[in-house]
Formats: sequence, structure tokens, C-alpha cells
Amino acid sequence: MSSVALADLIRPNVQSLKAYQVESFSGAIQLHANENPFPPSGELMALFRDCLQEIQLNRYPDPECRKLKQALSRKTGVPEENLVIGNGSDELIQLLLQIFCGGGDRVAFPDPAFGMYSIIARGMGLEPRPFPLDDRWSLQAGPLLGHMADCRAKILFLGYPNNPTGNCFAEAEIQKVIENFPGIVVVDEAYYDFSKTSFLSQMNGHNNLIVLRSLSKIGLAGLRIGYGIADPFIIQQLNKVRLPYNANTLSQTFAEKVLQNFTLVQTQIDRIIEERRKLYQALSKIDSLTVFPSDANFILFRARQGADAVFNHLREKGILVRNLSGHPRLSGCLRVTIGSPEENDRFLAQIAVLSGPAKVK
Amino acid sequence: MSSVALADLIRPNVQSLKAYQVESFSGAIQLHANENPFPPSGELMALFRDCLQEIQLNRYPDPECRKLKQALSRKTGVPEENLVIGNGSDELIQLLLQIFCGGGDRVAFPDPAFGMYSIIARGMGLEPRPFPLDDRWSLQAGPLLGHMADCRAKILFLGYPNNPTGNCFAEAEIQKVIENFPGIVVVDEAYYDFSKTSFLSQMNGHNNLIVLRSLSKIGLAGLRIGYGIADPFIIQQLNKVRLPYNANTLSQTFAEKVLQNFTLVQTQIDRIIEERRKLYQALSKIDSLTVFPSDANFILFRARQGADAVFNHLREKGILVRNLSGHPRLSGCLRVTIGSPEENDRFLAQIAVLSGPAKVK
Repeated sequence: MSSVALADLIRPNVQSLKAYQVESFSGAIQLHANENPFPPSGELMALFRDCLQEIQLNRYPDPECRKLKQALSRKTGVPEENLVIGNGSDELIQLLLQIFCGGGDRVAFPDPAFGMYSIIARGMGLEPRPFPLDDRWSLQAGPLLGHMADCRAKILFLGYPNNPTGNCFAEAEIQKVIENFPGIVVVDEAYYDFSKTSFLSQMNGHNNLIVLRSLSKIGLAGLRIGYGIADPFIIQQLNKVRLPYNANTLSQTFAEKVLQNFTLVQTQIDRIIEERRKLYQALSKIDSLTVFPSDANFILFRARQGADAVFNHLREKGILVRNLSGHPRLSGCLRVTIGSPEENDRFLAQIAVLSGPAKVK
Repeated sequence: MSSVALADLIRPNVQSLKAYQVESFSGAIQLHANENPFPPSGELMALFRDCLQEIQLNRYPDPECRKLKQALSRKTGVPEENLVIGNGSDELIQLLLQIFCGGGDRVAFPDPAFGMYSIIARGMGLEPRPFPLDDRWSLQAGPLLGHMADCRAKILFLGYPNNPTGNCFAEAEIQKVIENFPGIVVVDEAYYDFSKTSFLSQMNGHNNLIVLRSLSKIGLAGLRIGYGIADPFIIQQLNKVRLPYNANTLSQTFAEKVLQNFTLVQTQIDRIIEERRKLYQALSKIDSLTVFPSDANFILFRARQGADAVFNHLREKGILVRNLSGHPRLSGCLRVTIGSPEENDRFLAQIAVLSGPAKVK
């Protein structure tokens, strides 16, 4: 028999964490996770089935993800030596923190921002240093640079567009930050396909710029494939700490097929962008809501009824959205993912029930 | 334009690392990676195809891996609250180091041992403290406990069986270590299916014991599914730092099917064990080789001709094995994975060419 005091062995930064809770919901309409509402097309599924026959599941994956990187290179124009594949962007965020930051180093990002920047940093014993956005969620380079200098941040994460606010910060402001921050600027373009604006073309002139992308928002969340674009020196360092088989064979191969047949996905992206326009217009007509413009596949809105009332009503009706009211800057706020036309209609109908008849504001 | 001194931003422990090199080889016979030589059976592939139709690839994976854990629980008898799923065991090694160890903490393991213990520890800024095995690769509890006390190790990894030596250390010695070490003992049972001996039954009495298992060696290396069995308190801590979607939907679902239809895999495992017996006997008859007994799906042997000569000859003939002679304790040593009967015959034929006619030792 042995019984050690396990709690005494756990690192203090881990003890103080809570496990990340993901909403669990088997209801009909899932508008909480910024997924593509449309399943892969029949044509794409047929390609996946063909792949499955050719894959050697008894062999380890290609640790270099060569074919996937070739396909990415062809799609983005980025040389393969500038690419790294992650088990989702989450893993790339972690790897970047691992190579650049050590015990107690500071990690900067806007507030509000994607929650994983802070969660991953704290799990690694690093110190999150959020920088408050203004009331329209815009970002000024000067104050942000001052904030990072004050807290001696080593790395900055900027969602472009930002999650959960949905907007792209002004390009000129981000550029000023990249050019004047003596550390690393990670521009997280997870929602790039919906914004169609990118910092990729600025990679050449800025060796401290790293761009993250993902297949998760455009229909392949189940695969867990994210990728990073960075200076080859940074890629080399990431490859030192990346677990060699971090991307499994199925995900590598399916992702390659998606990239080679991207029109099958692009059609869905175009539909989502069109649905976003319609949903934004409809929500904007509702008197009790403040709706924020979005460049992503979701919309942030503030409800005068309070976020809990809206969230609970929708949930009762089988519709799950993200309740953000726990965040001090987001009281009354919810985030709704752009769904299929039918899902958006049902969501709007329930919002209308809560809000009374639409009034022209 | 911006140009920062990137090398100055990289953590010193990462700068000093080299990237993990995996042998790249498209030759016919791959006996270097301890994979199952047999592809999944037609019946299993048919189940995978059926799964693919039902999977929602546009949705995120189940972050709790509930169905996979249920299947594991049924297969192993371990309650679900004692289980954690990893993107391969590699990720679980990393997560364990993340919750138990901080800057400069010491990590113990036998020498020789699976290379990733050291590689992952160094990538995290921790200090590997290998403990030399004796010439027969056996382990005595007393000296190991002394070693760990001297270096103030927080955690010990023990392969059971050990890789690359292939043997299981004496159960009583490991038990003494678990009962007397005031830290964490990780028994890595990646090759359990070939040894059929386990420390799982000892979990109840020892809260500092963690067992790791994997599907990689038994035919599903491409999926990247490892699992850990530990005290629920440890599982809770791991879940705090585990990235929520670390196991993708395809791998979760396929792994579940494998566990529910394990006889399809067990047949292959039984064949590999029988092939191991035959290969061990055949190699043992060759005068120029010292062959070490194996409880795993590979065999370690020392060649009087030198490891490089054997490795290069085999490689020229289209057979890849693992050359271990770079390790100070393994001069002249190679590791060969148990292949299919045909692969083993071709390997033996080439070994015979090098070694001259077999002599009864």
C-alpha cells in the first residue's frame, strides 16, 4: 500500500485552475460553438471514404505532415518551411507559449478575447495580461504598446477577427503594434474565411508576426487541424517541442482532401456569409438588442432583458447559444453562431417572442 | 518593417534542443517503429466506414470522450473517473509533467528507456535524471530509490515492458519503488498486449501509481489514441490542463469500435506473439548476435559486426530497423519490430547473409 499527499505534488498554478467546461447539449440547434452548420458535402464525404481505404492505420502518421503542408502551400502560397500543423490551433497557442515563455512570463491579449489564450497560459504557469478594448471593441496601438511595455509581455495574441466581439481591429493599428513591439505578435485568423482579410501578406516584412489558421470553423471541427505560418526559424523551434505525431493520419489526409477540393467548402462559407448579413439585419431591427457588426461566423449582441433570460428561453426551446454575461465587460451579452437558414429562422422567431414585435429603431 | 532578434526570444532550454528525427523510409519492410505489421481486418475497416457516415465532422469532438471512455471502462474494468484520453501516450507524458513539475524539476526513468521521456522533459525545461540499468537490463528498487532521493526526482517513468530493451522489470522491485517513493510512479504499459502482465490491479492500493496504455502498438498507430489510468484526483488535474478537444472525432470513434470488437485485434496480437517466439529462437541461433528476451513486439539484439554494418546492409535490402548504437549503453545494438511472417523471414535471411551460416551456440 502507498498513499502520498497528491495535492501537495500538484503545481500551484494547476491547483488554482478550474477544468475548461464545454457546454454539453444534445438539443436540435447548436449555435454556441462557431461551427459550420452544414455537414461536409456528399462529394467530400465520398473523397473521405476513398481516403480511408488507402490510409495505413497500423502505421504512425507522417510526423512532418508533408502532403498536408504541400496542399496548404498550394492553397495559401506560403512556402512549406513557413508552416507548422497543430492538433487544432489550441495546440499551436500552447507550443508558441512553450518556446517563447517561461515561469511567470506575461502573455498579452485583448479583453474580451478567445478564452483559451488565458486558460493555456495559466495552465503553463504564465501570467495573462488582458488589455481592455473600448466600448466599440476597437484597438489603439499606442495604449496597447504602453500596456505591453508596462507589464513586460513577451507575446501578444490578437484575434483577427476577434472572438467573441466579431470585429477585425483596424489594420493600421495592428501594423503599428507589429512594427513597434519588440516581442511576438500572433494574429489568430481562425475566422479568416469569413472576414476575407488577412495579415499573411505582411509576413515577409515582419519576422515577429505569426499567423494562425484553422479548419475548425469552416466545416471540419471534428478533425482538429490548425496551422501556423511563421518565420522558418520559429517553425524550427516549434518542431523541437511539437510531439512528433501530433496530427493523426486520418485528420492529415482528410484535411489534405479538403484543401485540394476547397470549392466544396467555399460554397458553404459563402452561404454562411450571406446568412450573417441577413441575421445581422434582422437582429438589428429588434429594439431591445444592441447588435455588434461581425466579420466572423457569429454575432455578438447585448439584450436589455438580460443574457440569462434570453439564454434560458432559447435553451428551453432547444437552441443553444453562448451566454457571455459572466464576463465583466459583457453583461447582457450573448454570442450566436450563424446557422443554417432554418436554424437562424427558428432562433430569430424565439428572440422575437422574447422581445415583442420588431420596431424600427 | 520589423525585425526582432528572434533567437533572443526563444527559451534557452528550447534553443539547446534538436528536433526529434523520425526515420523516413518508403521501403518495403518497416521494422523500426514497433507498429503492428497487419493492417486492420476487413471487418474492422467496414466498421470504420460505417462510423464515417455517422460522424458529424463539422462539429467539435466530445471533449470528455465519453463513449470512448465507456468502451475502455468495459474492456479494462476501470471506472470512467479513473480514465483520461491522450493524443497518443506522448501527450499524456507531457500532461503529467505539466501538472507535477515546474522549472528545473527532475524526471527519472531507466537508462536505456523510451526516448520521449527525456525529450518531452527537456522541451518543458525539466531535468531528465536517467538511472542506469544493469547489463541484463534489470532493475533493483534500492539503488533506484537512492538515485531518486539523491536527485530529488518528482516523478518516475517505467516502461513495462521497457523500450528498447523489451523486458519487464521484476514486479516485486517495481512494487517496492511504488510503495517507497514519495512521488509519482508512471508505469508505461504501451506494450502491455504483448506482455500480458500489468500493474492495473494495483491501482487501488497505490494512489501514486499511474498506468499508461496505447492503441498504437496493436494496429492503430495512425489514430493517436493513448489512455491513462490514475486516481480520480489526478485525472481532475490533468483535465484542467488538457486541451479540451485533444482527441479528434474520427480517432475517438474508431478507437471505440476497436475496443468493442477487440477480438479482431486480438487475433493479430496472438500472431505477433507467436512470431516473436519464432524470431527470438532464430536470432538466438546466430553466433554473432546477442539477443535479449522480449515481452514486447520487438527484439533488441547486439551484433558483433557492429550496428551500423547491419543497419546499412538491411537498409540496402529494403528493410528498416532501429539502429541504437548512438546510445552509450547500446553499442552494437539494433531493435527489430516483429513483422509479418514474410517480413521476418526476409529480415532473417539478410541477417544470415551478414552473419554466415547459423551455428548452434
